[in-house]
Amino acid sequence: MKTTNGKTITRITLDHGSGGLAAQELVQQVFLSRLQNPILAALEDSAVLPFADQRLAFTTDSYVVEPLFFPGGDIGSLAINGTVNDLAMRGGTTILGLSLALIIEEGLPGEILEQVAASLAAAAAAAGVQVVTGDTKVVPRGAADKLFINTAGVAVIPPGIEISPRQARVGDGIILSGTMADHGITILAERENLGIAGQLRSDCCALNQLVDNLLKLFPAEIHALRDPTRGGVATALCEMAAAAGLELEIDEAEVPMNKNVAMVSEILGLDPFFLANEGKCLLFVAPQAEKEILAALQRHREGREARLIGRATGHGHGRVVLRTAVGGQRRLTPLTGNPLPRIC
Amino acid sequence: MKTTNGKTITRITLDHGSGGLAAQELVQQVFLSRLQNPILAALEDSAVLPFADQRLAFTTDSYVVEPLFFPGGDIGSLAINGTVNDLAMRGGTTILGLSLALIIEEGLPGEILEQVAASLAAAAAAAGVQVVTGDTKVVPRGAADKLFINTAGVAVIPPGIEISPRQARVGDGIILSGTMADHGITILAERENLGIAGQLRSDCCALNQLVDNLLKLFPAEIHALRDPTRGGVATALCEMAAAAGLELEIDEAEVPMNKNVAMVSEILGLDPFFLANEGKCLLFVAPQAEKEILAALQRHREGREARLIGRATGHGHGRVVLRTAVGGQRRLTPLTGNPLPRIC
Repeated sequence: MKTTNGKTITRITLDHGSGGLAAQELVQQVFLSRLQNPILAALEDSAVLPFADQRLAFTTDSYVVEPLFFPGGDIGSLAINGTVNDLAMRGGTTILGLSLALIIEEGLPGEILEQVAASLAAAAAAAGVQVVTGDTKVVPRGAADKLFINTAGVAVIPPGIEISPRQARVGDGIILSGTMADHGITILAERENLGIAGQLRSDCCALNQLVDNLLKLFPAEIHALRDPTRGGVATALCEMAAAAGLELEIDEAEVPMNKNVAMVSEILGLDPFFLANEGKCLLFVAPQAEKEILAALQRHREGREARLIGRATGHGHGRVVLRTAVGGQRRLTPLTGNPLPRIC
Repeated sequence: MKTTNGKTITRITLDHGSGGLAAQELVQQVFLSRLQNPILAALEDSAVLPFADQRLAFTTDSYVVEPLFFPGGDIGSLAINGTVNDLAMRGGTTILGLSLALIIEEGLPGEILEQVAASLAAAAAAAGVQVVTGDTKVVPRGAADKLFINTAGVAVIPPGIEISPRQARVGDGIILSGTMADHGITILAERENLGIAGQLRSDCCALNQLVDNLLKLFPAEIHALRDPTRGGVATALCEMAAAAGLELEIDEAEVPMNKNVAMVSEILGLDPFFLANEGKCLLFVAPQAEKEILAALQRHREGREARLIGRATGHGHGRVVLRTAVGGQRRLTPLTGNPLPRIC
């Protein structure tokens, strides 16, 4: 198997599930080449399906997070919120239903499943969505690690709403809806048993109601949305810049981050720009509306720490420049290697 | 955790993934009780979502089959055909798109993934469907067994088509679209390394085009459809009978079965009525049209061995009586225990 840059992939490695470059190569080389169609090739958070003079958003994600429970969430809330957010990132805020498919390892304590089911139900209720269809598989002990969940979702995109990196323009303001890297750092601190774990909390939450409100207020001024999950803010910005054909400048000093998250990133030697978020979005917005959009975001609980973090400065091939806090600059690139497996 | 009949489930067992009674109990007790809504509670092969004066079918399934490749198919073709068939069983024959989510074990040879991707693409092309969105996760070695696939699908149900066990009536003819138990026996023979394996072949195929043609010819006369996958023909008939409030009689001598399948079932001591099919459907049809429907089915490659196997004989609580080939009768019940893990 050869990747587009000529490397041969003989075995799948954890890098291929990173959400970064290796994952892109794998998908391109193995799947897109064979399943070629324009909807899939767009590689956005959701597919857009034309139907009856309207448009449906359709998306899927599997959740393999380890540990199953963590401060601020668990595999159940993650599975609801992750898919709800992928729909919302295409403007699919009227959600017709979610599917729920479980792969359970034989021997899983019934109580664990009960807790996850309760969390799924609570997250669905909070987001105002219904699980409408499902599937359960049980595999023998050792054939899976405890529990994996897949959710898919179908939503209606309101008429006139066109949210996509391809709508982003030179001059657009770039907003991050809140603090960076909370989910990634929380999971890693749990795994490493850092004493500080009590101070950290995943940002896992649903953004559909926030996005719905914003799109009603600013239907034309919000150009693109993306939730920076695996691969973090850096990878999401690079992908958006490349899809938009833009160059971006990000001002590090403006990027909101919790103090404890910054500290633990430092201790673990990890760059928070590459760490997963599960309740945040990046917005590309028309410059004349950016102050109003920021203010509207900050009125929502999920957006109260939103900040304008940068701007699309020109046409280009996806360069993302970070103006660092100490006055230098460095290029942000998509995540390569160094995977954080089972972060979501 | 208590089931509806008062038993406590302390640990998940393979029985809970059987597609039989234990699986029903688990879903009811753990999930339906918390995710309560009328669409989910219907527990049909697909959910039906009203949208824009039309109706969408939406379904999901995870595939964990072992081995990944078997005579007649592999996890890739199974993942396409299984979900296509679940949509078709509700009349959702205009398929808007499928999602594809992979959970890959670190170390999987690239060639295996290439083969599966090629098979996915071929099955999608054969069924005339597109994969429009996807997700890839890689988990560390030992956290999953090689490869699991989830597909979900969205389809349009043509106006006027109402396919559901609740449409079945007393007097309806019951048709099986072809031979029974081919998939289940093929998988088991592969696992047991029976010498006969070369003579067996999974029936894995897509039924959407067959169903689409039949519904165009007999929009009102076809009342209910189900694909007898996990749990086999017996479990599917029991579930349909219970949902319809009917009693059924099945004539064993009329149920089509390949000679080798019957022989291997005998050798392995398994009842083929409980073994999985992956390219067959059960049809409940108006008696006045049953001969014509049977003839129409037999004109399709996928239906050429279709037979009328029984009838809905009266109102009831889901009793299914099998008139045996030797002139006796026995009651068919849903699968309990004795699971065949990872059959699909």
